Amino acid sequence: MNSYSLNSTDERELYPGYFGKVINTDNMTLVYWRAEAGARLPLHGHPHEQVVSVLEGQFELSTGEGETRVLGPGEVAVIAGNTEHSGRAVTACRFLDVCYPVREGYASGN
Amino acid sequence: MNSYSLNSTDERELYPGYFGKVINTDNMTLVYWRAEAGARLPLHGHPHEQVVSVLEGQFELSTGEGETRVLGPGEVAVIAGNTEHSGRAVTACRFLDVCYPVREGYASGN
Repeated sequence: MNSYSLNSTDERELYPGYFGKVINTDNMTLVYWRAEAGARLPLHGHPHEQVVSVLEGQFELSTGEGETRVLGPGEVAVIAGNTEHSGRAVTACRFLDVCYPVREGYASGN
Repeated sequence: MNSYSLNSTDERELYPGYFGKVINTDNMTLVYWRAEAGARLPLHGHPHEQVVSVLEGQFELSTGEGETRVLGPGEVAVIAGNTEHSGRAVTACRFLDVCYPVREGYASGN
């Protein structure tokens, strides 16, 4: 069993206004995000399935297919692999991304 | 993009004292748990990798190999597949389990 304390892990600004703490496991990548109000993630895609769970604040997700959802605490979105999507922090917010398989582009931050 | 509101999803008592809301995706199972103080999960194992993220309260995890961790908010444990483990809610607590692959035994609760 490996354990991690996010409280003692430095966050990293992986995109402008998006500060993440990353845990890579054998199969998955988890990123615990804090985003600044108004910060935008441009439209992008990847083969990984991604599950977004909002913990605090309001986060807007849109797909390249024209769907948009504003997610608040207790709301969860599942983005299939290879679905282009973009994001916007409607307010300062915190959310968890879980991706399968491992996102090789994110180094574990522990 | 599929989205879910945990706020309008009924929790189910999947084990005594453990109330879960389940989301199954193509590859993963996420269970958002609320546990009553003192509730115990007996030693069990499964081939799935499991990541436990504590959101509120204190949750104790032990492995059949004799490791024990008490996890609080912001603490995360990664349990490799086929590692027997047990749990105890030290206090009333909330935590998120993420499993790969899908836990066929948990029906999606939406």
